[in-house]
Amino acid sequence: MPNIKVMHFGLGPIGAAIVKQVAARPGFKIVGAIDIDPAKVGRDLGDVVGLPKRLDVKVSADAAKALRSAKPDVVVLSTTSSIKKVMPQIEAILKAKIAIVSTTEELSYPGYTHIRHARQIHAMARKARVAVLGTGVNPGFAMDALPIALTAVCERVDRVVVNRLQDARIRRLPFQQKIGAGLTTEQFQKKVDDGSVRHVGMTESIAMIADALRVDARSHHRRDPAEAGVGDDLERVPRGRSRLRLRDHSGRRRLPQEGAGHQAAHGSISGVAETYDSVEIEGSPDLSMKIAGGIHGDVATASIVVNSISRVLQAAPGLHTMRDLPLPSFFPGR
Amino acid sequence: MPNIKVMHFGLGPIGAAIVKQVAARPGFKIVGAIDIDPAKVGRDLGDVVGLPKRLDVKVSADAAKALRSAKPDVVVLSTTSSIKKVMPQIEAILKAKIAIVSTTEELSYPGYTHIRHARQIHAMARKARVAVLGTGVNPGFAMDALPIALTAVCERVDRVVVNRLQDARIRRLPFQQKIGAGLTTEQFQKKVDDGSVRHVGMTESIAMIADALRVDARSHHRRDPAEAGVGDDLERVPRGRSRLRLRDHSGRRRLPQEGAGHQAAHGSISGVAETYDSVEIEGSPDLSMKIAGGIHGDVATASIVVNSISRVLQAAPGLHTMRDLPLPSFFPGR
Repeated sequence: MPNIKVMHFGLGPIGAAIVKQVAARPGFKIVGAIDIDPAKVGRDLGDVVGLPKRLDVKVSADAAKALRSAKPDVVVLSTTSSIKKVMPQIEAILKAKIAIVSTTEELSYPGYTHIRHARQIHAMARKARVAVLGTGVNPGFAMDALPIALTAVCERVDRVVVNRLQDARIRRLPFQQKIGAGLTTEQFQKKVDDGSVRHVGMTESIAMIADALRVDARSHHRRDPAEAGVGDDLERVPRGRSRLRLRDHSGRRRLPQEGAGHQAAHGSISGVAETYDSVEIEGSPDLSMKIAGGIHGDVATASIVVNSISRVLQAAPGLHTMRDLPLPSFFPGR
Repeated sequence: MPNIKVMHFGLGPIGAAIVKQVAARPGFKIVGAIDIDPAKVGRDLGDVVGLPKRLDVKVSADAAKALRSAKPDVVVLSTTSSIKKVMPQIEAILKAKIAIVSTTEELSYPGYTHIRHARQIHAMARKARVAVLGTGVNPGFAMDALPIALTAVCERVDRVVVNRLQDARIRRLPFQQKIGAGLTTEQFQKKVDDGSVRHVGMTESIAMIADALRVDARSHHRRDPAEAGVGDDLERVPRGRSRLRLRDHSGRRRLPQEGAGHQAAHGSISGVAETYDSVEIEGSPDLSMKIAGGIHGDVATASIVVNSISRVLQAAPGLHTMRDLPLPSFFPGR
């Protein structure tokens, strides 16, 4: 089997981590790279992402031209969290009839919050006869696809609680800022209120779980999920815990027991001593899963993107999510 | 959507547990039941499986006739662990062009140990234009599909250790006998040597993991997996631990680091105080997952079978495994 030809679109921290993996792992060949940052354009990709060796690929600012000349099998798109902002880039890639794996959080499960964009992408991808997937660890795995997979052993699901606790002290500064580390309770609340501190992708994760369990998820996106439950746990901020939490009590339609509450709760915490991912399923049987130390965000996100590439190349044309594709696993090369 | 019409073939403890779930869960209609046990034939299915109500389905001993008259969408086949013994039943069902979800352990990943039967079933299923799947908690999930899914976040996998520890004191007597509870070390060793104490399905789980990681699995089935490593841990039996363990050192071909050992280790333990399932992945990143209390065997096996039915009805014709299908999740009805 020939190597999979990969083009990298977006060379921020995650994009660069993906480049390093694709460069090091068997089964891939990097054929192009795109970024609009003038400090990166024209330089060798290896140099830009901090590798000690050249990759003999020059970073280009002209996406359409680079796509035409490089003829990749797949574009890894890591430019922004926003589906709206990423639309012109997706259009350009799909016009060139190339499959996409993206870290765009809002693309991970866009059927609720961005149905118009999702339909557009689906139509363009089908026309181009290629598949598109938004993935990552969170959203994309730890707080949605993995909990959903664990329900496979249940005959009844009453409540799902997913927690992702990370000690932000060992994470990158942008991550620390993103979750509001160092703020007072008042400053934190203000940023939650104006939407500048939020957990991008949480709406998507909750919608994915709600769809899998067939509970009504429309209530989820009537208000900002970061806002929905944060008041609930704000008293913990002085102790260093700023848990964003969302509860869903809207799913009673499918509940077997009158009055039981379906709940999808998501947490993202800074300054805690213990770091872990957990999934608690109350039902039959109960299930209590914990990943000690958690799933490390940046390495793991780059890995799941790279591991998803072969799945996307095998998938039917159109926009996919981590819920409908076979779950990816470590891709050992061809 | 109309309910899925289910026929139950095999009414032992697992088959009966599946009947109870299908009878209770939305989205299904039981249209027939087959068992050869004269004590069950002719009686109402609800009565046979111990439900307090009738199901208005009479247990039949004539599979071909029952299949023709009941016209199910899917047959749940729970008669035996042996693919060889189950072949005539599979033939009869596929002649009637009906999809199959089976708990036959050897069917869960038959490409290594039963390639001839696997090819036959695949050809018959394609001809019948229906899908066939062997599944369960173990093999089928806890020690294969779930560990494989967890490698999705890894850029490198050096070693995989899967442990399933169960306190046999809280399990059914047949389970206790199956793992050799109450035997002396000598009696236990004798039963391991003559093959009467073994972990049916472990070969299949290891082959599935090995294929997913693209390591050479042929070494696995040159000898009985139960035999392969049991001497290794037999000294633990006096402390109440009889761990069946298999190591794979055959996978060096794909290892990034010279001399590192690829390892798939599976355990099944009796009389231990703690019950859990765990997956340890050494690689980048490391991952340490634990399901406290374990995945309860009988309820969970029945659940994953029922939850897999809709996946099998959507799958392409042919023989599938838990590795190639999208992982099932709780099926909430239609």
